[in-house]
Amino acid sequence: MREFELLKIVEELFGCEEDEELRVPAGSHDAAYIKFGDTYLVLTCDTVNEISDFPPYMSAEEMGEMAVAVTLSDLAACGSSPMYFLSSISIKEADKDFFKGILKGIRNACNRYGVKVAGGDIDFAPHTTIAGFAVGITDKIVTRSGARPGEKVYVTAPLGKAQLCLEMLSSGLGRERLPYPDSLYRPIPRINEGKNIARFAGALTDISDSLAVSLHQIAESSGVRIVLERVKLPLAHLTKYVDQKKSLDLFLYGGGDYELIFTADDRAAQKYGIEIGYVKKGKGVYIQDEDKKLQKVEMKGYSHFDV
Amino acid sequence: MREFELLKIVEELFGCEEDEELRVPAGSHDAAYIKFGDTYLVLTCDTVNEISDFPPYMSAEEMGEMAVAVTLSDLAACGSSPMYFLSSISIKEADKDFFKGILKGIRNACNRYGVKVAGGDIDFAPHTTIAGFAVGITDKIVTRSGARPGEKVYVTAPLGKAQLCLEMLSSGLGRERLPYPDSLYRPIPRINEGKNIARFAGALTDISDSLAVSLHQIAESSGVRIVLERVKLPLAHLTKYVDQKKSLDLFLYGGGDYELIFTADDRAAQKYGIEIGYVKKGKGVYIQDEDKKLQKVEMKGYSHFDV
Repeated sequence: MREFELLKIVEELFGCEEDEELRVPAGSHDAAYIKFGDTYLVLTCDTVNEISDFPPYMSAEEMGEMAVAVTLSDLAACGSSPMYFLSSISIKEADKDFFKGILKGIRNACNRYGVKVAGGDIDFAPHTTIAGFAVGITDKIVTRSGARPGEKVYVTAPLGKAQLCLEMLSSGLGRERLPYPDSLYRPIPRINEGKNIARFAGALTDISDSLAVSLHQIAESSGVRIVLERVKLPLAHLTKYVDQKKSLDLFLYGGGDYELIFTADDRAAQKYGIEIGYVKKGKGVYIQDEDKKLQKVEMKGYSHFDV
Repeated sequence: MREFELLKIVEELFGCEEDEELRVPAGSHDAAYIKFGDTYLVLTCDTVNEISDFPPYMSAEEMGEMAVAVTLSDLAACGSSPMYFLSSISIKEADKDFFKGILKGIRNACNRYGVKVAGGDIDFAPHTTIAGFAVGITDKIVTRSGARPGEKVYVTAPLGKAQLCLEMLSSGLGRERLPYPDSLYRPIPRINEGKNIARFAGALTDISDSLAVSLHQIAESSGVRIVLERVKLPLAHLTKYVDQKKSLDLFLYGGGDYELIFTADDRAAQKYGIEIGYVKKGKGVYIQDEDKKLQKVEMKGYSHFDV
């Protein structure tokens, strides 16, 4: 979790720079909101690289698609409509087919989500890296800090599939035998879901590191406690392959799913998410078992260093 | 120059995507212009890394400053006002002081140019890399394709200083003995110059790879020939240290200066630039010696691989 220590330095240096125009600055949400005429521009950047993000057997096209998906996921977490994408691509050598594959992946993903490719930059480096930058627009600000006691907590789909597959690969299973290969190789940003959810959600964010990390970020920025209900967590997709304990671990701490997590008190929320817990006064993140006993959920998850 | 081969692939895949809204798309200029209400948003990204861009003895703060400078230089090349900066920073390990140095450099440079830091992303990788993204605004589109026969060619300052210093370092000279250390360690984006020049220039771009590369890009996109006049090139800052031939080589093919190059027929241009040649019908880039003999200027320059 060394990344979080570094994020503290970011906050120390840039944290107080909010103003009338830059409404949600660096470090405090998935993306920055900027007042621009009648609307907000939403700006974000995200990087994927072959050391920490590309699983074995990933094709160049899938790398390009992934770069778009993880960057747009930040915009989905703001309920915004993605408009433009740019990327800085670093590759080892001028391998035309490989480079073309990455670009095709970027183009296809951008076409799929109605996003225009507005520019890019090429660099050479010992490892393939794609830094993505996206611009979205929205009329409304929704962040991690709007969770209120009494709301329920929802997630857009069952979690842990990408991490399960990654660990299966590490233990020697081939790509073709993975149960959920698309979770790992072709993550999907929840753009339409984000736009709908933003209309009624208190807090909204995406899950890139882990559910636990996202919940801690919501709890801390909103000044609330979040309690997960063990009995409500959908784990069947995992218990088919691993035991109960490991399934829970993957659900809470696995990375790479790029689903949205949100809090809401509206029954309409059921349409867009699976209820997994609730918000109350206090602080921290807990999980409640069937006997109502509370256990702490740690702030940990997929780290760029851990895999 | 393998980068240019890759740029052809970019053009092949994305080249025709210009439309009413995305006015100057990926690959055709330093940055993309996007019609947004009454104005244009200008979007760009640029990456610097320790393998190809950071000279020996560079401090973490200077790395951060450089990332901002080279990205904003693209916006200067559009005559736009830079507004927001984001960066994806990859570092080897969670070295707090090093990371803080990079961020301070980013903050200081952004403060200096009146740019707000709107976000960022941290990643771990074997080599330090900073991918910068910037958003500017402007009311007018100026690109590489507006050069017209009869115009003169100007550059904002004498060139070759960064490359001279880099080569001096390679041959064993210490940083403290370099004649132009700031050219190498603290490049300055020509933002105010760009805004002024955009009012009257035919074509405008910045020099990142080399004067030769930028001139070829202007000549090709404008469908004109560019002729440099040997006698007009200011070389005294170089001939103090190397011979005439090497000085000319550094001026034409050296990288890292981040000055602006533009074409104009206005006498006002003299205020912002040094006249170095002229535009005529035809194609290609040539240099004319005192006897009016023409020699080809090659499309080459500092490549990310060459140093």
